[in-house]
Amino acid sequence: MMIRAKLLPFLFCLVVVAFGTKESDLKRCKHQCKVLQQIEEYQREKCYEICEKLYHGEKQEKEEEINSYEGKEEGKNNPYVFNEEHFITGIKTEHGRIRVLPKFSERSKLLKGIENYRFAILEANPKTFVVPNHWDADAVLFVAQGRGTLSLVRKGKRNSFNIGRGDVIKVCAGTTAYLINRDDNEKLLIAKLLRPVSTPGQFEHFFGPGGRENPESFYSAFSSEILEAALNTRKDRLQRLFGQPREGVIIRASEEQIRVMSQHEEGGIWPFGGESKGSVNIYKQRPLQSNQYGQFYQGGMLGPIYSSRATKIAVVVEGEGYFEMACPHLASESESGRRQGSKETETRIGRYQKVRSKLRRGMVLVIPAGHPFVAVASTNQNLQIVGFNVNARNNEIVPLAGDFMHKNLTRWVDCHTQGRNNVMSQLEREALELGFGLPAREVEQIFRSQPEEFFFQGPGGRATA
Amino acid sequence: MMIRAKLLPFLFCLVVVAFGTKESDLKRCKHQCKVLQQIEEYQREKCYEICEKLYHGEKQEKEEEINSYEGKEEGKNNPYVFNEEHFITGIKTEHGRIRVLPKFSERSKLLKGIENYRFAILEANPKTFVVPNHWDADAVLFVAQGRGTLSLVRKGKRNSFNIGRGDVIKVCAGTTAYLINRDDNEKLLIAKLLRPVSTPGQFEHFFGPGGRENPESFYSAFSSEILEAALNTRKDRLQRLFGQPREGVIIRASEEQIRVMSQHEEGGIWPFGGESKGSVNIYKQRPLQSNQYGQFYQGGMLGPIYSSRATKIAVVVEGEGYFEMACPHLASESESGRRQGSKETETRIGRYQKVRSKLRRGMVLVIPAGHPFVAVASTNQNLQIVGFNVNARNNEIVPLAGDFMHKNLTRWVDCHTQGRNNVMSQLEREALELGFGLPAREVEQIFRSQPEEFFFQGPGGRATA
Amino acid sequence: MMIRAKLLPFLFCLVVVAFGTKESDLKRCKHQCKVLQQIEEYQREKCYEICEKLYHGEKQEKEEEINSYEGKEEGKNNPYVFNEEHFITGIKTEHGRIRVLPKFSERSKLLKGIENYRFAILEANPKTFVVPNHWDADAVLFVAQGRGTLSLVRKGKRNSFNIGRGDVIKVCAGTTAYLINRDDNEKLLIAKLLRPVSTPGQFEHFFGPGGRENPESFYSAFSSEILEAALNTRKDRLQRLFGQPREGVIIRASEEQIRVMSQHEEGGIWPFGGESKGSVNIYKQRPLQSNQYGQFYQGGMLGPIYSSRATKIAVVVEGEGYFEMACPHLASESESGRRQGSKETETRIGRYQKVRSKLRRGMVLVIPAGHPFVAVASTNQNLQIVGFNVNARNNEIVPLAGDFMHKNLTRWVDCHTQGRNNVMSQLEREALELGFGLPAREVEQIFRSQPEEFFFQGPGGRATA
Repeated sequence: MMIRAKLLPFLFCLVVVAFGTKESDLKRCKHQCKVLQQIEEYQREKCYEICEKLYHGEKQEKEEEINSYEGKEEGKNNPYVFNEEHFITGIKTEHGRIRVLPKFSERSKLLKGIENYRFAILEANPKTFVVPNHWDADAVLFVAQGRGTLSLVRKGKRNSFNIGRGDVIKVCAGTTAYLINRDDNEKLLIAKLLRPVSTPGQFEHFFGPGGRENPESFYSAFSSEILEAALNTRKDRLQRLFGQPREGVIIRASEEQIRVMSQHEEGGIWPFGGESKGSVNIYKQRPLQSNQYGQFYQGGMLGPIYSSRATKIAVVVEGEGYFEMACPHLASESESGRRQGSKETETRIGRYQKVRSKLRRGMVLVIPAGHPFVAVASTNQNLQIVGFNVNARNNEIVPLAGDFMHKNLTRWVDCHTQGRNNVMSQLEREALELGFGLPAREVEQIFRSQPEEFFFQGPGGRATA
Repeated sequence: MMIRAKLLPFLFCLVVVAFGTKESDLKRCKHQCKVLQQIEEYQREKCYEICEKLYHGEKQEKEEEINSYEGKEEGKNNPYVFNEEHFITGIKTEHGRIRVLPKFSERSKLLKGIENYRFAILEANPKTFVVPNHWDADAVLFVAQGRGTLSLVRKGKRNSFNIGRGDVIKVCAGTTAYLINRDDNEKLLIAKLLRPVSTPGQFEHFFGPGGRENPESFYSAFSSEILEAALNTRKDRLQRLFGQPREGVIIRASEEQIRVMSQHEEGGIWPFGGESKGSVNIYKQRPLQSNQYGQFYQGGMLGPIYSSRATKIAVVVEGEGYFEMACPHLASESESGRRQGSKETETRIGRYQKVRSKLRRGMVLVIPAGHPFVAVASTNQNLQIVGFNVNARNNEIVPLAGDFMHKNLTRWVDCHTQGRNNVMSQLEREALELGFGLPAREVEQIFRSQPEEFFFQGPGGRATA
Repeated sequence: MMIRAKLLPFLFCLVVVAFGTKESDLKRCKHQCKVLQQIEEYQREKCYEICEKLYHGEKQEKEEEINSYEGKEEGKNNPYVFNEEHFITGIKTEHGRIRVLPKFSERSKLLKGIENYRFAILEANPKTFVVPNHWDADAVLFVAQGRGTLSLVRKGKRNSFNIGRGDVIKVCAGTTAYLINRDDNEKLLIAKLLRPVSTPGQFEHFFGPGGRENPESFYSAFSSEILEAALNTRKDRLQRLFGQPREGVIIRASEEQIRVMSQHEEGGIWPFGGESKGSVNIYKQRPLQSNQYGQFYQGGMLGPIYSSRATKIAVVVEGEGYFEMACPHLASESESGRRQGSKETETRIGRYQKVRSKLRRGMVLVIPAGHPFVAVASTNQNLQIVGFNVNARNNEIVPLAGDFMHKNLTRWVDCHTQGRNNVMSQLEREALELGFGLPAREVEQIFRSQPEEFFFQGPGGRATA
C-alpha cells in the first residue's frame, strides 16, 4: 500500500496481535512456563500465576487509583490524546454522523509531522445508505464495528464487497465510494485515516448524486447551459434531477435495496501497492505488510516499548484502560518557558514529562517515534487498540522490558523480529554500571526479572519480585 | 522526467489532445455517427448535427450572456484564476520581459499544495538574445509562440536546438541556459513552471556573463584578489570584463550572430527521466508520458471532468472562452466564516462554490485534484490550453458526462484509458435511486444522453435532447 | 545511505578530496606542468611556480587585508555563517558538552529548505563516557578529532567499533548509542547532522540509563506500579535504580572500564543503504558514494564553483581562511525592502550580495544550490572543511574558473566527472560576445588563463597573468 505523501514518504503500517482462543493459549502459556524451569523454580511459580491471571482475570477494581492519578498527571499539557470533544462534526443526521479531528498541528506544533493526515469516524445506523462521493484525499478505512457493503468506482469499474469488523480497505483519492449498513441492529463504525492530495491537511467530500442541497450535487455548481450541453438534456429535466433538496448524506434504504446491494463476496485481498479490490481482515489474516492491532486481556499491559521511526495514530476500538508515555519534547517546552532570557542551560537534555490518560472506546492516541509508552487494560475489560503507523518504513519496535521469547503467547507480525531482548539487556556491563551508577549485577537482575515480552500482566494484578 | 520535489513527489504530466486537420476529422466524426445508428435514429441525426457544428462552427455570439454571468458569479473569492495583473515583472526592457506569478500560497492557503512551484512567462522580441544564466530551480518550458534556439550547458557539454511552438523542454537546476528569438517578426513566448531546489518557493537567476550591473555578473560579487587568482588574470583586464554596465538581460543580436547560433537540428526527443537533449512537440508527437494539451474548436467544451490526484497549472495559449469549477473548499471557508462560534454544524459537507471566469490568452488556471471543471471555447474562436500537472503519478481523469468511445475524434494520450464511461453510469440502479431520489430509469436516461466523451459541443450551439 | 526525509528527498553526499602526501603530489604537480608545455612556455613556467607555492607555501600575511574587508562586507545580513555564539548548549559539564545550532529557518527564511536538519557538536574530554541514549532523528556523525569507541544497539544487537578522526558513521533514528573517549589527552569532537523523524526540525535525547535527574531515565516517567509490573521488580529496588540523581550525560570512566569497552575492531565499512555496522574514513578510503572533504594547503583556494542541486552544510575542521559567496536572494530581499510600494521594477534580476566571512575552526557554513562560492586557506595554515550535502542526488559540481585536467593533483570523488572545463568555456563565441559585450577572443583568453581545476593558488601568493 504505497500512498505517496506530500509531506511524509510513509507506509501505513499496522501490526496484528492475535491471542487466538483463550483456552489453547492458556495451555501454551503454561507450557512456556515449563520451559522456563531451568531458570529458577521461583520464576516458574510466578509464571504459572501470571498465566492464570492473564487468562482468567482478577476482578478487583483499580479504577479509583487510576482516577486519582489522572487529576495530578494528565493535566492540560497533553496534545497526544483526543476525546469525543476534540472531534468536529462534518455531518449529523438521524441516521448517522461523520466526525473529523481538526488538523493535528492545530492541537500542538509537536504534531506538525503528521499535519497532513486527518482522522475521521463514520457512524451509520442499521439499514442505511451513504450517498456516493469522492474525496481529494487518499484514505485507509478500518471497520471497527458492524457489517456493510462498500462500493468503489475507479478507472471506469465498480467493485463492491461486503465488509465487517476488522476489515482494512484502502481508497485512492478521487475514487467514488458508497456504502450500506446491511445489519438489522448494529451500527456500522468506520475509522478513516486520510491524507489530502491537493491542499495539505485539508480535504472535502464531492457528491455527484445529490440535489440543490443536503447534499448539493457538484453538478449543480455548473451553469445550466453547461449542464444542458454536457448531459445533452433539457433544462426542465435537469431541474428535476438537481433542483430538489435531498434528505442527507446518510439516508434510510429499503429492505429490497439493501438486499440487492449486499449480494457481493465477503472480504478479499488487501492490495498493498495495487488497487483496492477488497479488504484484509486483521483478525483473520496474516497481513502482507506490518500491521498493528493490539488486544489486551483484562489487566494485561503492552509495553514499555518505543517505535524507532513510525508515529502511531491509534484508536481504542473496545474496552477501557490507561496509557502512559515519556515525552522529552513537552518537558523541554515547559522548561524553555521557565528559562526565557537565559540562553544557556545544562538541563535541556534528559528530562521527560509523563503523559497519562484513561483509555475509552473511541479515543484517539498519537504516539510519536522514539517515545517509550505503555497501555494497560482495565482489570474488568479487554482492551482493543488499532494503530495506523505513519512513516513506518524500516520501523523497529524496541522493547524496554522483558526478556524471553514467547512465540506462541503473542503473535506479533511486524518489521521487528520475534523474541528480541529488551534494549537494556544489550548493554555492556560497564555501560550499565556507568549509566545507572550501580553495580552491573544489580541492574542486570532487574532487567532480567520479567520473563514475558511486550505483553505483561499489568499493575492491576501485579506480583512483584 | 523525474524532477525530485522538496514538498511534492510528483510527475509533470501533460496530456496531448490533437484534432488533426478539420477536414479529415469531420469525416471521422460522421463515420462515428454511422456507428451510432444502432442506438437510435434520433441520436444519429443529432450526432451529424454536432459534427457539422463542431467543425464549421456557429457564429452567434454568447459573449453578452457570459459577461452578465461574470458580474454575479466570478466574485472576488476566486484564488484559482490569474490574470495579467497578478504577475510581477522580473525584468522589462525594450526587447522583452520576464513575468513571474507570486508564490501560489500568497494568493490563498488553498494553494499551499503547490507553493513550491512558480510560474513564469518569458517574452523576447524578434532577433534578440537572452543572456546565459542558471536558476536554483528545476524547470519545464513550453514554447507558446515563436521560433528560437535554446542552448543548455550541463555536465560540461553544450546542447543547442531549435525550438518552436508546442515544444516542451525540461531544464535541470543549475543548467546554464541561453536563448535566441531567431524569427524576424514574431515574439518568442515561453511559459515556465519552476520548482526551486534550495529555498522552497523561491528561485533566482544567476548570470555568469554580465558586468557591473544590468545584469551584474556573479563573478563581480567576488573580491578582486579572488578573481585575479581564480582566473589567473590581472585586475585591469578583469575590470574591463566585469566592470562595465550591460544593456540588459534580453538584448538585440545581429543577423550574423543569429545565423550562427541557429544552425542546429530541429526538435529532438524529450528525455523523460534523463537529460535534456532536446524537446518534444506536443502538437506533432505522441509523448512518452502523459501530457495535456487541449484545443477546443469554436463553441466546443471540455468536461465536466476531474483529476483524481493531479493539480493542474494551465495556461491559455490561444483563443477565448470561459471556465467553471465546483469548489467545496471555498464553500466551507465562507461558511466557517459565517458560523464562527458555533462548533457543530451539519452543513459542512456537500456544498460547493461555483468558480467561474472568462478565459483569455495568457491567463493561468489552477485546477486542484478532485474538483469537477469545464472549459468552453467561445463561439468565434478556437481555445488552446496547455496544462502542467503537478503530483500526476497514478492520476486518473474521471469523466462526469458522456458515454461513448470516440477514438478518432479526440486523441487523448494519458494515464487514463480511452472511452471510459462517465462515473454516474457505473453506479448501481439502487445507488442512483437513493442518491438522486428519483427512479433509476430517469437518472440513467439523463447520464446516457450525451454520446460524446470529454469534448462536447458547448452551450454556444447547444441542441438539447 | 538512504535516510528518508520528511521534507526533502535527499542523499547525504560527501565528497573526498585527498592530496595524499605533499612530496609525491609535488612531483605529480610538476609532471602535470610538463604536460602543459604544448600550450605555451609561459604557462609552464607559471605552473611550476604554482606547484612550489602550493606545496611549500608563502608566509606573507594577508590577514590585515582580510580583516579590513570584513568590516565593510560581512555585515549583519549574512544568514549563511554560524559561529560559536550561534550554538545553544544542550548540555555542559566539566567532562564535555553538546552544542546544537537552532533550527536553520529561525535564522533566515532563506534556509527554510533545510529547516528539517539540525547540526550539533559533541565534545567529550579524555577518558569519559557518554551515557546510552536514543534520538528521534536519523543522524550522520563525523569524527573531527580524537579517538573513541562507539556502541550502537539496534534490532536486538550491539555493534561496537573504534572510531577516529575522519570517520563517518550513520546512526538510524531510535538506535541506542553510547560512546567513550579512549584517548588519554585529546578531546573527542564529533559533528552531527540530524534529521528528525517525528516532529520536523525538532529532536530530543531519550536516556534509558539515568536516575531521578541529570539525566533522568525515561523509565522514571512511568508510574511506579507500571514499572513494578513491567520489570517484575519490587518498588524499593526500582527506587534504588531510578530514584537517585546522576552525575551527568558525559561522565568520567575508569581506566579499566575504558580498557574493556575499547577492545573492538578499528573502522569498518560504511553501510550505505544498509545498517550501521561501522564507519568509513574519508581520509583513508574511497567512499561508496560521493562525499566531500576539502583540505587546502596554505594559501590554496577552492572554487569558484557551485552545486547544481545540493545544499551544503559544511564545518571547518581545522585551519583558518575565508569564504566568499554570491547571493541573489539577499540582494533581491534588500531591494524589495527599498522598493516597497512600487510593484514593477526592472532590477530584480541580475543582482548579487557578496557574502564574506573569515573561517575558523568550528564554524559552520550553509552553501545553497546554485550559489557560486570560494574558500581560501590562510597563508599560514592549512584549511580543512567537511561538508554534508543535503538533496544531493544528481548533484553536479559546476566549475566557474580553470581549464585543464588535473587528475593527480586533486582526487575529487564525486557525482561529477573529473577534468570538466569551466562553464564559460562551453559557451559559443557569439554568446560570450553578446553576454559580456566584449570581443569573444578577449573573453576566451581570460577564462582560459587558469590551468588548474577547482583548487587554485589563492590570492595570498597570487601571480597574475
